[in-house]
Amino acid sequence: MKMIGVIGAGSCNNEVYELAREVGVGIAKMGTILVCGGLGGVMEGACRGAFEAGGQTVGILPGHDRTHANPYVTIPIVTDLGHARNVLIIRSSDLLIAISGGYGTLSEIGIALKLGKPVIGLSTWPNIKGIQYVATAEEALNAALASG
Amino acid sequence: MKMIGVIGAGSCNNEVYELAREVGVGIAKMGTILVCGGLGGVMEGACRGAFEAGGQTVGILPGHDRTHANPYVTIPIVTDLGHARNVLIIRSSDLLIAISGGYGTLSEIGIALKLGKPVIGLSTWPNIKGIQYVATAEEALNAALASG
Amino acid sequence: MKMIGVIGAGSCNNEVYELAREVGVGIAKMGTILVCGGLGGVMEGACRGAFEAGGQTVGILPGHDRTHANPYVTIPIVTDLGHARNVLIIRSSDLLIAISGGYGTLSEIGIALKLGKPVIGLSTWPNIKGIQYVATAEEALNAALASG
Amino acid sequence: MKMIGVIGAGSCNNEVYELAREVGVGIAKMGTILVCGGLGGVMEGACRGAFEAGGQTVGILPGHDRTHANPYVTIPIVTDLGHARNVLIIRSSDLLIAISGGYGTLSEIGIALKLGKPVIGLSTWPNIKGIQYVATAEEALNAALASG
Repeated sequence: MKMIGVIGAGSCNNEVYELAREVGVGIAKMGTILVCGGLGGVMEGACRGAFEAGGQTVGILPGHDRTHANPYVTIPIVTDLGHARNVLIIRSSDLLIAISGGYGTLSEIGIALKLGKPVIGLSTWPNIKGIQYVATAEEALNAALASG
Repeated sequence: MKMIGVIGAGSCNNEVYELAREVGVGIAKMGTILVCGGLGGVMEGACRGAFEAGGQTVGILPGHDRTHANPYVTIPIVTDLGHARNVLIIRSSDLLIAISGGYGTLSEIGIALKLGKPVIGLSTWPNIKGIQYVATAEEALNAALASG
Repeated sequence: MKMIGVIGAGSCNNEVYELAREVGVGIAKMGTILVCGGLGGVMEGACRGAFEAGGQTVGILPGHDRTHANPYVTIPIVTDLGHARNVLIIRSSDLLIAISGGYGTLSEIGIALKLGKPVIGLSTWPNIKGIQYVATAEEALNAALASG
Repeated sequence: MKMIGVIGAGSCNNEVYELAREVGVGIAKMGTILVCGGLGGVMEGACRGAFEAGGQTVGILPGHDRTHANPYVTIPIVTDLGHARNVLIIRSSDLLIAISGGYGTLSEIGIALKLGKPVIGLSTWPNIKGIQYVATAEEALNAALASG
């Protein structure tokens, strides 16, 4: 496995942020590159965890300004494609970990399952057939390892 | 209201096809342009209904070949963007009618609700907050008229 | 031939605008759909000519707001893709007529020639191998007819 | 300066390949990330040079298959956007070095100049206002350093 995508809410409470951060740490420790949308909330939490653990973090940004990336993105990709950039996050990832999230995350889950990518769900949209639901960051990371 | 998007399964049984066709007829009779992904199943049913009622049908195609459009598309848009073209269907529509559908439709529902577009659901993904669920083509068309 | 693209400067002097308008009239009279970027300058001139002659005009817009289309666009496609939407104009057209234009037009000419689409040039970037250069709107329309 | 894009022909002779490779070495030695389209020819030459000098190389791929990246891409971005991905290469780069190249490169030069990004040209499309033409890889790298 080369790249793991983390998708989730662009703004979130501290608990969800720390969950994302823990997932990010684990991704970096696997030696895997983290891919995300490059902005705040879950994206920032995950990037921060990975960054602080010495990992690489790709942020595929919707806008035209690199400085909108969170400070823990090491590889910013500037798309200016708006929400269409969601597809690139999914396409570039071997599997996705969805953490919390609203309608944008729902659209990413839809694309991921359409493309047959494994989706591991943590406190995210319930009752979607195809998502492997887990309860903790550790379980998410174990599921990622097992699927790869 | 200028353009109504119809989203749904790319292949479907005859009952769903006829449902989509009935919706297409209604959209054309409103004098509104139908927007869809331009392929088969629900997309073809809807285009066919609109086309046979004298309406305009825009097909925003994922591939690079115009001939992949169903025969009832009057305005084919060739994107070669793959699933990223889903966002264009949503962006170009004033409201969406979702009929049946799988993961691709789920991703379109997510984008539509993210962008604050009304989504009318007919035999589609259940229990998604924000979708206005209806039971018949007629109810879908009435809901579209009411929201416009 | 089903669709002809007109590419060119987003703002232009009156002479170039009238040239584009004359081309637009001719496209509509061929019974062909006009495709363009949907904004001002050459795009507006061409749409206006086609619209006033009773034709259909597709405007593939870079932004997220349909109201940014010029008033002569009958089929607005809202992409929110920025300059990436240029590729869709080329992909959707059977041939391109380039009128005047700056760097954006140059990028569209590049994509068109890359994809093997005929490009007819009118007061546009000189000395590009592959462009069929003409001197008047009438010559451009005749060249379009001959190629199709 | 954080990221430098290298654009050019997807297949090329050995001389151009070595030119691109020399440019890639220099980009890595600056501590800058190399961005390109991720495929063969100039893209591969540049990635190889950067990779062999220990640098990071981003390949923004047009297709849906990561394995189509050349073997020297360390960060593959899978877009499935076809030629529309060209815009992302330009958007993600602080400046561009164009080496040789055909119509695809011409389209990238157009987008780059449209967006006001510096373009350094090496054996590429001649006589385009806005390109800073140089004669050697060393001059290209010096021009990049000077502009940053």
